[in-house]
Amino acid sequence: MMIAETPELPYYAVIFTSLRREGDQGYEATSEHMMQLAAQQPGFLGVDHARDTVGITVSYWKDLESIKNWRNHADHAQARHRGRSEWYKAFKVRIARVERDYEFKI
Amino acid sequence: MMIAETPELPYYAVIFTSLRREGDQGYEATSEHMMQLAAQQPGFLGVDHARDTVGITVSYWKDLESIKNWRNHADHAQARHRGRSEWYKAFKVRIARVERDYEFKI
Repeated sequence: MMIAETPELPYYAVIFTSLRREGDQGYEATSEHMMQLAAQQPGFLGVDHARDTVGITVSYWKDLESIKNWRNHADHAQARHRGRSEWYKAFKVRIARVERDYEFKI
Repeated sequence: MMIAETPELPYYAVIFTSLRREGDQGYEATSEHMMQLAAQQPGFLGVDHARDTVGITVSYWKDLESIKNWRNHADHAQARHRGRSEWYKAFKVRIARVERDYEFKI
């Protein structure tokens, strides 16, 4: 397991924080498919995901245009619709420009 | 359980992604204390945290100065030192300016 590697600054982060409803309703399969599909998009740089009480997915992108193109991808638009109607109680999306980063490894 | 509420744009996010070492070594107690202490700092706006394979903590701040002041807080500096020596295999910190946000609630 690795933390997402990202290139030289600046780049963009999409911070997706969510609270799930009860039950799977096809969420896990779609989520995995979306992760794979996102990774194939132009401008995709990496993603990290964790869930316990809340879920946090942070995906990294070259620029705002890449984010917009992924947002408008047909399969993703369909998944986002199901997110609102079937999977999430609440979510928040934040688009942020990464201005500084540093890391530590043993 | 709630997702962090944040005010009008722009504000800043500190995205902390980490891989833990085995064992607690005082991590949980310190982590909880740091969350409480951070919440008392000037410019603190909110925080979300989740861990499964990786841990992701995203804290929100009014401006870069608030982030810098929290970084230099004596108790936090000590905890950050223990993070490198005892708790983490690897981590990455990204400081980002949130430029857009939207939310959904049922």
